[in-house]
Amino acid sequence: MPENGYVTPDTDRIRVFITGGTFDKEYDEINGKLYFKDSHLPEMLALGRCHLELEVRTLMMIDSLDMTDADRNIIVEQCRNAPEKRILVTHGTDTMTDTAVKLATTVPDKTIILTGAMVPYKFGSSDGLFNLGSALAFAQTLAPGVYIAMNGRYFVAGRVRKNRQTGRFEEVRD
Amino acid sequence: MPENGYVTPDTDRIRVFITGGTFDKEYDEINGKLYFKDSHLPEMLALGRCHLELEVRTLMMIDSLDMTDADRNIIVEQCRNAPEKRILVTHGTDTMTDTAVKLATTVPDKTIILTGAMVPYKFGSSDGLFNLGSALAFAQTLAPGVYIAMNGRYFVAGRVRKNRQTGRFEEVRD
Amino acid sequence: MPENGYVTPDTDRIRVFITGGTFDKEYDEINGKLYFKDSHLPEMLALGRCHLELEVRTLMMIDSLDMTDADRNIIVEQCRNAPEKRILVTHGTDTMTDTAVKLATTVPDKTIILTGAMVPYKFGSSDGLFNLGSALAFAQTLAPGVYIAMNGRYFVAGRVRKNRQTGRFEEVRD
Amino acid sequence: MPENGYVTPDTDRIRVFITGGTFDKEYDEINGKLYFKDSHLPEMLALGRCHLELEVRTLMMIDSLDMTDADRNIIVEQCRNAPEKRILVTHGTDTMTDTAVKLATTVPDKTIILTGAMVPYKFGSSDGLFNLGSALAFAQTLAPGVYIAMNGRYFVAGRVRKNRQTGRFEEVRD
Repeated sequence: MPENGYVTPDTDRIRVFITGGTFDKEYDEINGKLYFKDSHLPEMLALGRCHLELEVRTLMMIDSLDMTDADRNIIVEQCRNAPEKRILVTHGTDTMTDTAVKLATTVPDKTIILTGAMVPYKFGSSDGLFNLGSALAFAQTLAPGVYIAMNGRYFVAGRVRKNRQTGRFEEVRD
Repeated sequence: MPENGYVTPDTDRIRVFITGGTFDKEYDEINGKLYFKDSHLPEMLALGRCHLELEVRTLMMIDSLDMTDADRNIIVEQCRNAPEKRILVTHGTDTMTDTAVKLATTVPDKTIILTGAMVPYKFGSSDGLFNLGSALAFAQTLAPGVYIAMNGRYFVAGRVRKNRQTGRFEEVRD
Repeated sequence: MPENGYVTPDTDRIRVFITGGTFDKEYDEINGKLYFKDSHLPEMLALGRCHLELEVRTLMMIDSLDMTDADRNIIVEQCRNAPEKRILVTHGTDTMTDTAVKLATTVPDKTIILTGAMVPYKFGSSDGLFNLGSALAFAQTLAPGVYIAMNGRYFVAGRVRKNRQTGRFEEVRD
Repeated sequence: MPENGYVTPDTDRIRVFITGGTFDKEYDEINGKLYFKDSHLPEMLALGRCHLELEVRTLMMIDSLDMTDADRNIIVEQCRNAPEKRILVTHGTDTMTDTAVKLATTVPDKTIILTGAMVPYKFGSSDGLFNLGSALAFAQTLAPGVYIAMNGRYFVAGRVRKNRQTGRFEEVRD
């Protein structure tokens, strides 16, 4: 029972899987390159004064261009085995649509939201905090299915592409 | 029709009403006080790479502790008259629950989300961008009704209070 | 002896006295007011990758408009008694020139730099980090005397005023 | 004559030459790489409420690892030909010491300060603003010579190296 003494019907616990992506890239001041250290997700949730019941796990910390089939299988297995019905996956934007399609064909009956960022959270101009807020809201409200949350919107897996010229996600029709 | 050539079913235009609140407070470096100048909403939407179809209007720029019945009537009228079915209201957190109750009893058949921030957007530690992301997502997905979006969650008008000790919004039961 | 094994002639230790001021104001998210908690100076020095030998002491944490003669006497005594010949005082900008004059008439033979900020460090738009960098540089290079470091410049105590319309410090002649 | 009606003896105009370096690196959200666009120097000077009389010129926008002899010759010529006696050069940290030595042997009778940043200004954790403040202060106060301003300190050209393990600048003896 939550601390305020009331049962809160909308707080089915949400599982959060971290996989890396631009979201979590850091600047290495010794060699001048971007790299992964720890996830910024806990810091971002604290900044958002987020009081959802979350269960956060880091599955990998990689650029999504480097994501292999084996990596995607791990994500699928973890989503399938998680006891929660609502799942958020943080993910690099470059192959986010591929992972979404794979999840859509392998994990039924759960609401799975993939989100990421165009600019690292630690860069002042990052969209990460905005995307995280919207993704967690979509995770609470959308029907079972796999979705991408970017640009303030949600897109159904298999019907979305990242426009590589503009950096925007766009709906595609069959 | 949107620029990608497809009709996007989830982009019923959203109306956004700005009323001020901590969200939009600025620091006046001449007198050392917090004050209102222009809204930061456009800047925040740009930062979030938000590509929702929005219609933004500033109704007032005030601290919600200074909000009068007349001010609330303006918000009610504007929500009632807006052609959009989905509305976001940015609002100071101190009396946000009062405005929510008033809207719930006067504006039926629309999804109205109120959100704000505990810390001004221009302060590094602001929850504003996170809240804006979640509020816009809730505006797209929740059934008609009036809700408050704070702390990553949504609360039904009339069943929520701001805990003045912790600064958190909490659900209340009858 | 410093860690690189060489005696560094320009690192006469600098004493830093913290007295509060806009520099260190925080936003209290419970009551919406600005207040003092801990100084941000250690965080700012870390951000600046500052490797000067500093001895930092907090004397008070107050708005300089509230600074009394007794408070100024404490600053004078501390500057007089410090073993270091070079001193930095962080101070609210409103009465910084008064404290500078008092120090100039009571503490001879030391280089004392007063600095502050027009906007709290925690606000994104703060001049604090820039001012701290310049003040520490002036502390290392100026001859004994009392100076104010603001707007990228240094001003001799007794020959400077804060322009209350523009917020800028300006030189004044006799 | 400055706007306050008084001649300010410490405002010999300072020449600022921009050459690029980490200071000015941006994140390209389309390809995920760091790159150069425009210099952030004007924005940083505005943030610092800097009211020094400066003459700013961009000579190049490059990573200092890519700086050739021809590039260094341009910097030397520009420093030699500038009418100002006090010069600030923003520069990548990797070969900053090389350029400093070259300037020390070719441009006598001027105070030349080189500075840069370990982390891009646009990253929240940048030392850039602190370094800029200290470099401009050193430019106003040090005797003719060539210096590097980093880590809150100044180092004489030819007697300083960048420690590639720690990222710190250290004094070296003959």
